[in-house]
Amino acid sequence: MTRLKKTRVESEGTVYEKLSLMEDEELKPWDTETELKIVGKSFAKIDGDERVTGRAIYTSDIQLPGMLHAKALRSPYPNARVKRIDATKAANHPGVRAVITHENIPSLGWLNDTKILDGAARFAGEEVAVVAADEEEMAEEAISLIEVEYDVLPFVVDAENANKVTAPIIQGENNLLGGAPRTYHRGDVNRGLTEADIVVEGTFTTQTAVHNCMETHSAVADWNGDHLTVWESTQSIANTREHLAAVFNLPLNKVHVICYYMGGGFGSKQRAGKHTLLAALLSKITRRPVRMVLTRREDNLMTGNRQATVQHLRLGAKSDGTLTAIDLTSTGEMGAYGTHSSLTEGPAQTLYECQNVKTDNRAYFTNMGPAVAFRGPGYVEGSFALESLLDELAEKLGIDPLELRIKNYAHIDPRSGRGYSSKNLDVCYRRGAEMVGWDKGWRGDRTGSKCRAIGVASQIWGGGGGPPAYAWVKMNPDATFEVIVGGQDIGSGTKTTLAQIAAEELGVALDRISIRIGDTEAAPYAPVSSGSRTTPSVGPAVRQAAADAKRQLREIAAGYIEVPLEQVALREGEFYLEGEEKPRISVEELTDTIDELTILGRGIRGPNPNNAELMTFGAQFADVEVDLLTGDIDVKKVVTVLDFGRVLNPLGAGSQLEGGVVQGIGFTLSEGRVVDGRDGVVLNPNLENYLVPTNMDMPVVDYAFTDVPDPTANNLGAKGLGEPPMIPTAPAIANAIASATGVRIRSTPITRAKILDAIQAAKEVRQ
Amino acid sequence: MTRLKKTRVESEGTVYEKLSLMEDEELKPWDTETELKIVGKSFAKIDGDERVTGRAIYTSDIQLPGMLHAKALRSPYPNARVKRIDATKAANHPGVRAVITHENIPSLGWLNDTKILDGAARFAGEEVAVVAADEEEMAEEAISLIEVEYDVLPFVVDAENANKVTAPIIQGENNLLGGAPRTYHRGDVNRGLTEADIVVEGTFTTQTAVHNCMETHSAVADWNGDHLTVWESTQSIANTREHLAAVFNLPLNKVHVICYYMGGGFGSKQRAGKHTLLAALLSKITRRPVRMVLTRREDNLMTGNRQATVQHLRLGAKSDGTLTAIDLTSTGEMGAYGTHSSLTEGPAQTLYECQNVKTDNRAYFTNMGPAVAFRGPGYVEGSFALESLLDELAEKLGIDPLELRIKNYAHIDPRSGRGYSSKNLDVCYRRGAEMVGWDKGWRGDRTGSKCRAIGVASQIWGGGGGPPAYAWVKMNPDATFEVIVGGQDIGSGTKTTLAQIAAEELGVALDRISIRIGDTEAAPYAPVSSGSRTTPSVGPAVRQAAADAKRQLREIAAGYIEVPLEQVALREGEFYLEGEEKPRISVEELTDTIDELTILGRGIRGPNPNNAELMTFGAQFADVEVDLLTGDIDVKKVVTVLDFGRVLNPLGAGSQLEGGVVQGIGFTLSEGRVVDGRDGVVLNPNLENYLVPTNMDMPVVDYAFTDVPDPTANNLGAKGLGEPPMIPTAPAIANAIASATGVRIRSTPITRAKILDAIQAAKEVRQ
Repeated sequence: MTRLKKTRVESEGTVYEKLSLMEDEELKPWDTETELKIVGKSFAKIDGDERVTGRAIYTSDIQLPGMLHAKALRSPYPNARVKRIDATKAANHPGVRAVITHENIPSLGWLNDTKILDGAARFAGEEVAVVAADEEEMAEEAISLIEVEYDVLPFVVDAENANKVTAPIIQGENNLLGGAPRTYHRGDVNRGLTEADIVVEGTFTTQTAVHNCMETHSAVADWNGDHLTVWESTQSIANTREHLAAVFNLPLNKVHVICYYMGGGFGSKQRAGKHTLLAALLSKITRRPVRMVLTRREDNLMTGNRQATVQHLRLGAKSDGTLTAIDLTSTGEMGAYGTHSSLTEGPAQTLYECQNVKTDNRAYFTNMGPAVAFRGPGYVEGSFALESLLDELAEKLGIDPLELRIKNYAHIDPRSGRGYSSKNLDVCYRRGAEMVGWDKGWRGDRTGSKCRAIGVASQIWGGGGGPPAYAWVKMNPDATFEVIVGGQDIGSGTKTTLAQIAAEELGVALDRISIRIGDTEAAPYAPVSSGSRTTPSVGPAVRQAAADAKRQLREIAAGYIEVPLEQVALREGEFYLEGEEKPRISVEELTDTIDELTILGRGIRGPNPNNAELMTFGAQFADVEVDLLTGDIDVKKVVTVLDFGRVLNPLGAGSQLEGGVVQGIGFTLSEGRVVDGRDGVVLNPNLENYLVPTNMDMPVVDYAFTDVPDPTANNLGAKGLGEPPMIPTAPAIANAIASATGVRIRSTPITRAKILDAIQAAKEVRQ
Repeated sequence: MTRLKKTRVESEGTVYEKLSLMEDEELKPWDTETELKIVGKSFAKIDGDERVTGRAIYTSDIQLPGMLHAKALRSPYPNARVKRIDATKAANHPGVRAVITHENIPSLGWLNDTKILDGAARFAGEEVAVVAADEEEMAEEAISLIEVEYDVLPFVVDAENANKVTAPIIQGENNLLGGAPRTYHRGDVNRGLTEADIVVEGTFTTQTAVHNCMETHSAVADWNGDHLTVWESTQSIANTREHLAAVFNLPLNKVHVICYYMGGGFGSKQRAGKHTLLAALLSKITRRPVRMVLTRREDNLMTGNRQATVQHLRLGAKSDGTLTAIDLTSTGEMGAYGTHSSLTEGPAQTLYECQNVKTDNRAYFTNMGPAVAFRGPGYVEGSFALESLLDELAEKLGIDPLELRIKNYAHIDPRSGRGYSSKNLDVCYRRGAEMVGWDKGWRGDRTGSKCRAIGVASQIWGGGGGPPAYAWVKMNPDATFEVIVGGQDIGSGTKTTLAQIAAEELGVALDRISIRIGDTEAAPYAPVSSGSRTTPSVGPAVRQAAADAKRQLREIAAGYIEVPLEQVALREGEFYLEGEEKPRISVEELTDTIDELTILGRGIRGPNPNNAELMTFGAQFADVEVDLLTGDIDVKKVVTVLDFGRVLNPLGAGSQLEGGVVQGIGFTLSEGRVVDGRDGVVLNPNLENYLVPTNMDMPVVDYAFTDVPDPTANNLGAKGLGEPPMIPTAPAIANAIASATGVRIRSTPITRAKILDAIQAAKEVRQ
């Protein structure tokens, strides 16, 4: 039996209510007394073999009879309209099956009320025509044969210029997303500043960062009769299906989306991409399967990026360190399309219990590739500003920066006024300090030109998951099991974690469980794998489904033994009768007796029983050495302690944490899209000039988890950890650099040049 | 809730009990008053578009990165042992990744306790080595480089010789399947013969027929880590999975079998083939996907055939036509492997209520390709003998052959003594007679050298389906539905029929339903598509699952409106409250309200509530013209009336019927494997010399169905019709020929030469 429940949902600053289904009898979390046999133990990825041998089938591996390859002609101008386009030569090129332009396609919606291939190019790299041909090379050759005459228009490439009255309008009335800033306040920030003994302020800038997933965006679309099958590298097969259904006006049962394996999304693959819609359209036109796999260059230009921000922040505090005011004005650069700006104000609003907070967030459309979510969107940038300036405040107050954080962190959610389902941030601070040796020397030391210090920063993020999520657990006739989930494993080890949960609940070995994931058709709805939500959303549904399968097994055993259900217990694969010590029959024996017995357990991840805030917390410490002569920055060690409830797979959690730290280091020190302001062209849409960290850049990564089961978050006591490890990295490193060198860099990436310039400037001030 | 129930199962003459799961509350069949909107109406195949455009993905269309192609070296001798084999040159041939022979592979079980590639060739065409290479041509070249020295042994190619004491032993102790004949008797056949006023007897022979499915047997195996995925052209993904799991000692959750589309099986694709096991083994060895698609020649030689039979039959009757004795001795030719002989005795035991029946069935192993089931296995051959000799009896008695059948057909099952769930054979006889104009001229007439007459024959066959079968019905968040079934559509329109059943039960349009079939992983067990059982097994489970989904929808609506479940009715997509005429809310409105609502209904096809025999019946009439000068046989028209309960899709049923009739005509007139007795080699393993009927051979096919819902067979009132239309074709044609020409041909295929010889012989007798 199920029932309906209203839940409160917050998405990008908006709170709304939704109606969800929940189980009538929900499982309680395992209590801390229960000795778990599989959950909480380390397991290597159950699909590791195919991943490391290259046998795993990714979207670009899909081969279908008669499949065509699509390639796009892209505008060289950041703002232009197509005046004339002649695709005759391209259409007559050998192997070409279709050429689509704004002149010959139906109207299909894209973002911000624009249409796909609408004859406008709003950034350099945007599609103006697409060719489908028998071979990729044929499509590329044909592309070069399309003649285009453009109306070249004025353009802007940054938020500052987009806000000028003279700026060309890209979206909306004034290039401002939503037409007005997104603002928030609690208390009275001016009074807070007035009451403060000390006020610090600073302007922080962050760069445009590109996701650079191992696997570029790719789709294979196969339109067959009245239905569409799409293989897509995606963080959400469900969203992709809904998006395709909406654009092509199809019911959901006519759209089938598959993603068996994918090589990273980091926020950039949450719905169908333009390449997906183009592949689907071309398949519809040609009646052939169409493959569109973006190159690294295309991927960097068009599929999204972390928006560049300029944050002006003021903090006020009493001389005892009590924060009295946080005042943030944040500006972001949206690129040409988008519907949400980054949550830079998140940390300012929620990390500390300060009474007076005001935030103002504006995002401006520009003639650049669109900004989208990127691991901890806004929180990475917002934390850089807040946690850097907090260190500056600590210095002025003469208070240990760690103590200042411990003094001020919020004990209940300061935005909603509600308690947390669980919070052990103090443990993170203290444990991390111990691990990194904070007390022995965070201020650092200097040997020759090399100085070294430790920086700290805090992390807050969601990750509590939430409804709706569904799972099914099927028992095969030989008493092995398949977990069926309509979600995806974006590389984070979801399959392994879900198998552990099912194995634990069913009391069987891990290899008796297989996971079916990444296929919308024969699976129930599961949410997008973003917001650190997969495990805490889908995991509880899997446990519930396993429990349902177990109940059915008991019911069948009771029928077989001919006793009431209540008298039958199932433990470790054996059925026991109440009061008896020896089992009556094993699950295998029972299933052998019944012809082709198949069982299906259904599970729903229900809304939380209380109204607690489900958040994750953490503290990160960076031990950094800077060479004052060369500006070289060497991150020696990063210590991270995270608080995200029960740790289901310590090995998997550690891998995710390490990945987050290294991505954080890239953001902090080396990554950054470079644009030529004169022509709006990106200069480094590649991995040669856009510097993603390599193995050589890896510090020692040391970590710990509080591993305290959350008593109310869900039936696992677990929360997510996809984004958390990356969020505090930039300020932890920046704070270490400031302590080591005495100079404060307020702009990422923190490069050698910025360090040397700042040292030089500081010398000039002192002289 | 579910419970267990014991059912009696008969398989190939053996009766056993099995324990099955059933719903606590099973749906009753729709009563005849209920006006059905979708079930019972004609619909074209819902996957017709992809089938006719060639877009449907069959096993041979599967392409995987790094996929290898397997080809077998086949013995030229019908009985030989490999004395020496040297594969060095083959292994060194470009592109070759593996060569397997009996010398280098693990022991893997094959039929009759033999092993795969065991160094023995038991028929000409059997595998002695297999090569996997990058391209099919490379594998073929490599095959020709393998050097083999054989011990060539004596061989037998027919049952008669296999039964001689001097015969080489192929299987068992004496080449006799099971070591002893399969016998049956009721009453006293000798007394029955003694009491008869007239006794007729005859020896009937039928040929070896080859299935010649449009799609040859094919497999693509992909062994990845500890699990195996196999695409297979199969009548049973479940059997194939179980077979692979058994041979390779894997749990079921590590074996995934897929068959999205398949091009006919007719009994020859009921489990993994040797090609499947070889592809899987090669994939395991090479760690690459391996494709093994048989050529038409290979398919004809090794994948099975309808066994040749020699039947000696005696019938005794009173002068009023009452049958007093049926005495059948039947011999079949098994080929080199096999576990079941054909059910030639089935019609003799069950068609007529005769008190004294004795049957004796023996099958002998020979050095030929293995015999397997082929559409109506045994019943096609057995009906040819019984229904031909019955006409001879009618002639001697001077009774209208139709009347003789009406007089004698069984009203309860004469074998078990139990009643039928439903039987309307009398309607078939009378309706068919009317349609063909029996009374006006079954004895025929003659114009010049051309004589023409009508023959009749009866049909009995199973087709009641039975447990276990499961189905799931999933509702998508937009109130469209997916039916999930772990079965397959072997080309008979299963998808369409199942969609109709779900649409009817849910009260939605057909295109709101999609069917997911042909994938063992995310679907429950469904039985093999053989024995005319798919619709009556899986269909009731689908209806039950749809009803379960509907109940859950009502439950959710009740929760939403806040009334008890019992007060909510769901009709045509609208929820009504008891006593109200206007609906409160539609399904779409309800699902719009609830975030991503997904529902899963589960259904089980339970055992029959009573112990009735579930059988199908029919009568077929052939209107045939024979040219006495040339022996040309022209089947002008075939009229068939079948009794298989409720007709779910008249268009689909008609197509199946037409297919059966034409396959029956092929068996009767033109098909037949030809073997050179001197060397045991098949002379016509192809479509040039093995004559499958073409469009030019099609008669007018006229048909009707009794369409009387079976009150107890299952919740649909439906039975199967895959095999029935083929079963009576040979005797109906033979009887027409006898009436037209005065000569009786007791051997299929009935060729021109046999007709002319018989006419000549008859003349000689008369002279």
